[in-house]
Amino acid sequence: MSVRRLSHIGIAVADLDDAIRTYSAAFGLEPAHRERVESEGIATATFVIGEVEIELMQPLDAESAVGRFIAKRGEGVHHLAFAVPDVGEALERARTAGLQLVDESPRSGLGGRQVAFIHPRGLHGILAELVEER
Amino acid sequence: MSVRRLSHIGIAVADLDDAIRTYSAAFGLEPAHRERVESEGIATATFVIGEVEIELMQPLDAESAVGRFIAKRGEGVHHLAFAVPDVGEALERARTAGLQLVDESPRSGLGGRQVAFIHPRGLHGILAELVEER
Repeated sequence: MSVRRLSHIGIAVADLDDAIRTYSAAFGLEPAHRERVESEGIATATFVIGEVEIELMQPLDAESAVGRFIAKRGEGVHHLAFAVPDVGEALERARTAGLQLVDESPRSGLGGRQVAFIHPRGLHGILAELVEER
Repeated sequence: MSVRRLSHIGIAVADLDDAIRTYSAAFGLEPAHRERVESEGIATATFVIGEVEIELMQPLDAESAVGRFIAKRGEGVHHLAFAVPDVGEALERARTAGLQLVDESPRSGLGGRQVAFIHPRGLHGILAELVEER
């Protein structure tokens, strides 16, 4: 059972308002949704482009995962999220392929959907999120 | 006139065969297309996921743009390509938004399509390609 769709691209930005202005002006897009996700330590804005979403993520503090990412790598693509019908099965496939997992089993993500992350080491520098989409 | 679709994600990899094996095993995907693009100094493999393509790019030599990218940043997302109906008009919008352009005017890309790149500086770390799609 393979990946169905690229669900979203997470982009780490230092200043969300500034990034929204830039993306709106450059691409003629309007953010569809803004959300503050305290559990992840981020404020987000989402642009919908066809079947894919661009998720801009500003860290709420420097010690959050996204804050540490920006300190180390600068702004840019943080992760790619792939929609799969069954996260547990997709995670098992990744494990069997020898990939390093961030989450050993699916956990509850935004909107209560099952999610799991695969470590960029072994996946050629890509932090991948698996997102349940039945 | 706004961006219509995320066309593809370019991912810089050190070893194309190894990356193809990893992506195939991890996500159950088969490469739709392989191509050697001497003018860009890369060998590529493309996976189709819904309406988006993942383009793995291996540098043919260390001095190519992708070779220098890997030397500096490591493997990972190299650029995001956005489909627009008119590259010249989209480029003008980006220029007006104050973004730094890599290409001052549209040029001919793969398959003869008009393309132009926007510099990651000013676009929050994202090297963006505009691709004509009428």
